[in-house]
Amino acid sequence: MDFEKLFNPSSIAVVGVSHDLKKVGYLVANNLINQGYKCRIYFVNKNASEDILGKKVYPSLSEVGEKIDLAVLATPAAVSLSLIDEIGQLGIKDIVIFAAGFKEIGKDGVEIESELIEKIKKYNINLLGPNCIGFINTLLNINVTFLKHISPSGNIGFISQSGALGSVIIDYFAGHKNLGFSYFISLGNKTNIDESDALEFLLKDSNTKVIGMYLEDVKNGKRFMDVLNKAAKIKPIVILKAGSTTEGSKAAISHTGGLVGDDQVYDAVFNQNGAIRAFTFTEFMTILKIYSYDRVPTNRALLVLSNAGGVGVLFTDDIVKNKLSLVTISPETEKELTSTVGENKKISIRNPIDLLGDASAFEYSQAIGLTMQEKDIGSIGVLLTPQANTQIFETAEVIAENQSHLDKPIFPIFMGEESVAQSHVFFEEKKMVSFSTYDFLSQCLAKILQRQEFHGEQNDENGLRSNSLPIKLQEQEIKNILNNNFSKPFLNLGDSMSFFKLLNIPVLDLLFLDSESKIQDLKSKIKYPAVVKIASDIITHKTEVNGVITGIKSEIELKEVFNKITASGKAKGIYIQQMVKGHEIFLGAKRDNNFGVVIVVGLGGIYAELLKEINYLVFPFSQKRFTQMIEETKLAKLFKGFRGSKSVDIRKLYDISAKIGYLMENFKEIKEIDINPLFLNEEKLVVADARIIL
Amino acid sequence: MDFEKLFNPSSIAVVGVSHDLKKVGYLVANNLINQGYKCRIYFVNKNASEDILGKKVYPSLSEVGEKIDLAVLATPAAVSLSLIDEIGQLGIKDIVIFAAGFKEIGKDGVEIESELIEKIKKYNINLLGPNCIGFINTLLNINVTFLKHISPSGNIGFISQSGALGSVIIDYFAGHKNLGFSYFISLGNKTNIDESDALEFLLKDSNTKVIGMYLEDVKNGKRFMDVLNKAAKIKPIVILKAGSTTEGSKAAISHTGGLVGDDQVYDAVFNQNGAIRAFTFTEFMTILKIYSYDRVPTNRALLVLSNAGGVGVLFTDDIVKNKLSLVTISPETEKELTSTVGENKKISIRNPIDLLGDASAFEYSQAIGLTMQEKDIGSIGVLLTPQANTQIFETAEVIAENQSHLDKPIFPIFMGEESVAQSHVFFEEKKMVSFSTYDFLSQCLAKILQRQEFHGEQNDENGLRSNSLPIKLQEQEIKNILNNNFSKPFLNLGDSMSFFKLLNIPVLDLLFLDSESKIQDLKSKIKYPAVVKIASDIITHKTEVNGVITGIKSEIELKEVFNKITASGKAKGIYIQQMVKGHEIFLGAKRDNNFGVVIVVGLGGIYAELLKEINYLVFPFSQKRFTQMIEETKLAKLFKGFRGSKSVDIRKLYDISAKIGYLMENFKEIKEIDINPLFLNEEKLVVADARIIL
Repeated sequence: MDFEKLFNPSSIAVVGVSHDLKKVGYLVANNLINQGYKCRIYFVNKNASEDILGKKVYPSLSEVGEKIDLAVLATPAAVSLSLIDEIGQLGIKDIVIFAAGFKEIGKDGVEIESELIEKIKKYNINLLGPNCIGFINTLLNINVTFLKHISPSGNIGFISQSGALGSVIIDYFAGHKNLGFSYFISLGNKTNIDESDALEFLLKDSNTKVIGMYLEDVKNGKRFMDVLNKAAKIKPIVILKAGSTTEGSKAAISHTGGLVGDDQVYDAVFNQNGAIRAFTFTEFMTILKIYSYDRVPTNRALLVLSNAGGVGVLFTDDIVKNKLSLVTISPETEKELTSTVGENKKISIRNPIDLLGDASAFEYSQAIGLTMQEKDIGSIGVLLTPQANTQIFETAEVIAENQSHLDKPIFPIFMGEESVAQSHVFFEEKKMVSFSTYDFLSQCLAKILQRQEFHGEQNDENGLRSNSLPIKLQEQEIKNILNNNFSKPFLNLGDSMSFFKLLNIPVLDLLFLDSESKIQDLKSKIKYPAVVKIASDIITHKTEVNGVITGIKSEIELKEVFNKITASGKAKGIYIQQMVKGHEIFLGAKRDNNFGVVIVVGLGGIYAELLKEINYLVFPFSQKRFTQMIEETKLAKLFKGFRGSKSVDIRKLYDISAKIGYLMENFKEIKEIDINPLFLNEEKLVVADARIIL
Repeated sequence: MDFEKLFNPSSIAVVGVSHDLKKVGYLVANNLINQGYKCRIYFVNKNASEDILGKKVYPSLSEVGEKIDLAVLATPAAVSLSLIDEIGQLGIKDIVIFAAGFKEIGKDGVEIESELIEKIKKYNINLLGPNCIGFINTLLNINVTFLKHISPSGNIGFISQSGALGSVIIDYFAGHKNLGFSYFISLGNKTNIDESDALEFLLKDSNTKVIGMYLEDVKNGKRFMDVLNKAAKIKPIVILKAGSTTEGSKAAISHTGGLVGDDQVYDAVFNQNGAIRAFTFTEFMTILKIYSYDRVPTNRALLVLSNAGGVGVLFTDDIVKNKLSLVTISPETEKELTSTVGENKKISIRNPIDLLGDASAFEYSQAIGLTMQEKDIGSIGVLLTPQANTQIFETAEVIAENQSHLDKPIFPIFMGEESVAQSHVFFEEKKMVSFSTYDFLSQCLAKILQRQEFHGEQNDENGLRSNSLPIKLQEQEIKNILNNNFSKPFLNLGDSMSFFKLLNIPVLDLLFLDSESKIQDLKSKIKYPAVVKIASDIITHKTEVNGVITGIKSEIELKEVFNKITASGKAKGIYIQQMVKGHEIFLGAKRDNNFGVVIVVGLGGIYAELLKEINYLVFPFSQKRFTQMIEETKLAKLFKGFRGSKSVDIRKLYDISAKIGYLMENFKEIKEIDINPLFLNEEKLVVADARIIL
């Protein structure tokens, strides 16, 4: 679909305009005029006879008699629905519907929404909403929203599933300088235009430098991943998503009628496609601001200047916590600093550089000037506390002056409130991102740099998301196993292991024993010490029924264990494996209704559940991205050789994970797969236990 | 020492007053007059002839000729030092020294500081500083600081190791309403008065409702713990400490030494004594503000009202993340809400209550009125987004009106910037804690409630910190083992185990074998499957040299292993233990120079290092506190019976931990102790391996 015209119309009709200052029909008309739209505007209201806001009011769209690109319906749900035929017949292809009362109110609303969908399909109409607050396009000065303020023009594109959040941000803009929307798009019920459409649109818009999104859910997971993957490479995308906890998502269901998926799946989707997820509103706005002002650091190293040692240490703590670092000052620069700023006082030159409480604006400037060309600086943090003789505003001015001929960003942290307020306004005038506390900068920089590193390492586009498989699947054999078990809730251990063999996944040899006398047949194959596991088509958690016995040393013991396990009647026999040593890994796969197959990797064994050291990826994913994810986890240490064990190539784990993902993707009969443990053992990975849920 | 007079003097002399508006001698004189001190003030400067700030300037303290309670020295280090004799001879007992140039500048300074210490001892003088910025007492309108602003009077006592942080906070006060210091005490070098003294002083001050501390270190750890323990029971103490990212000493021999950094010991000290540690400046100020305004919730349950569903969900996410909860609305209240606020619109009544975007001030008030009496509400969060028709200030007024006859705190979260600014000022006038984003409230409430729960459960004062031991120590035997090993870096496994036996700590039987032929003697004692460990007085990490062999099933295997291990020449023999199953726990102890014995407990086995799931306590600690700490960790699940294992009383772990602590406390020869693993096995805890570092 092409929404170019909807967001850039040459004529707009507002239907349902009103004299009542509190009504949407008035507020939208007023915003459209105040924002300064220069093309044709038509007001429509079937009852209104007088002019509204100095403009003629037509009794119907038909009576306008001119070409209308966009019809904006400020009418109730039922009226809006009834207008579609007229709109369609007039050849209007783009509409916005504000009205609530559709699927978000439950059963009745779902019916009305279905009718609406049918009608817009019939006439091939693009629809924004319903249950939305419209959109803003500051390039054409279009504001068809009922927000409180009109928007300053800017380079932030914002896509929001909540209109209220638009009101918050536009109010924030009103209190700050040099910030504004390129486009604001309120999605509402996403009946037609959804987040993926809006994202694709903003991706192409040259005035949009950074894209912010507020999401509660995603309409079409697969498409969203495709669009996000493409978009996040080109523009920074910052996402605030509600429902990051279970309680949160309960509330979301009642809010928009949208189903919120497992938040960890969303997290994986954002992460593996290179979007930035913000967890607080402060983080969200700060990251948007850094991109909007184009103050993006190039690496993780900071130079910090301060007039207060203690605050410098607090800031440093925060820098280190966020995995950023401090630049090492070169001996030459150190010497220069000592002979200039440090001429008459004992300043501390180890980064953070402490210029002491009496630091003048000139000394700040000297120190910035001398240090800012040190190599490997990613950004500069300038801390200032308002002490008795501190030249606050003068210092702000010299900082801005230094910034004006420096490509690395300087972030002023002017702590306090009353004395520093003027400087913060000044910094915004200069498009500098300043703070009144050290609390927020590091976390935002860390997220920005993580995105950069991600895209830097992912420039091999084809490798990013791969769903090709290195082996040819033995499809018929796989189907046979599935067909033979189609009535069972899960594949037993034996069948699961056979399954993995078909995929060339290394498994630990498994012997099945269903009668004591058969031990003789297996004699040559049993390796001691052995592990015995209960063989059952019913029991899923074997350890919880004491169905796993380890350390069996002899045939005598084996018989004993066989009799004990089969005595219960629940077992159809036992499995016998050789005991192996190694680190235990958990590898699983599940289906997400929206995004498809999700792969879960973490620490295994019985501690998997205790520790919850697990990570998520949505299939397909590239080897690079997989490796990158593992590198960030505690698993990485195991692969690097932990306490005497040999190092193992992470690609081996990728290989198994990709195969599992591919299997799930191609055989919908499989609901979930658990491999636990997968032993990491002397350069090998081997499946020791698994469960395939059907 | 008694500092009553220092902080509440009846006459003050400022030495080194100056005409120069930038000098400390002017700034302090000016602050003292502007803050409005009503008692006698004397200005002294050996050169000044003219009046300063309209007051006579004496050439020396002696020439004042009146009784001086407090002498404030705004003179350089050397001059300050030289004045002490005169001060002492005049019988002045309390002084403040601002000058830098003492121990903080290194060797030369340390010498001057030693002289200073000697002199103040000689004359029995109390000293605040040097290298500080003085103090404020708003009750007597004393301000002997060179801060930029004078302080409004208030109930926040602030003790700071950084003067600059005082300047930040006082500037913050200047930009806010109804906040101020009772006392501000800048500690400087803590040559005489330290954080414990200041804390004891503020504890007794009836105008101080909450105490904030900024610390970089603590002068006397043991005393600080005593004072903090006493003080935190009576008043909330909020601590911001710099240096939270210092890493554990890498050179440490034991695990414990490597795992525990200085800051983690501080964390344990703050935690186990019931202080609140803030990690950001925002958190620090917000918690102080909540206590200062007396808006403390009684429990973890919140009621949330909102005019924006999405923001309600974001806030709920944050609530849940911080382990707070949402109150369940009763059916009666739900009914009332539906028939009033919900009469003409479909509001969502599940907490968070969504009053919808058009919510009026009246509707907010109705909803608060109907719900605020629901039982079990700890606090109320009222979210507002500035939408087109939102009655922002009117809503602020009705919220304040409701608060005025409600004992539970209401926290308004008025999001945005420009439109909500006036409301935030209004809320401060009403002593209400409001926010412009949902980001910060939950984390602050969680910390406040954790403190409350801590002190609620710890009202048994005697049980709080116990250093009595349930058994009689076999002191002589312990000494013998230590004496026999005094030249070694650590006790070998055999001696470590004997040691624990003396303490009645259960250990796994350990057999020592130094020659193959002796296997026959041990025959009846060896239980298979066995574990063999290298016996060495040199090797500390056995697994890293493959010095641990498990699963030995027979005498033949045992001999093989013996020969293999002893062949290297590094071993003096092997240890033999029976293999046991169970969960592995890590228990260690180390010495902190300042605070004494630190006990470390966590998940054990080879994963102790990988997972770093560890917790710290400074000895002594009560059984209650120990149990409480374990309950907050992943270990708790193991003790409760995890995946088929039986539950074990946490007191058994306390018992061993307390004994280890007591041992370290009483035998200074022991440097560190590692027990890893301590097996949690069928209702028992048993030490399987240990290392005692000397």
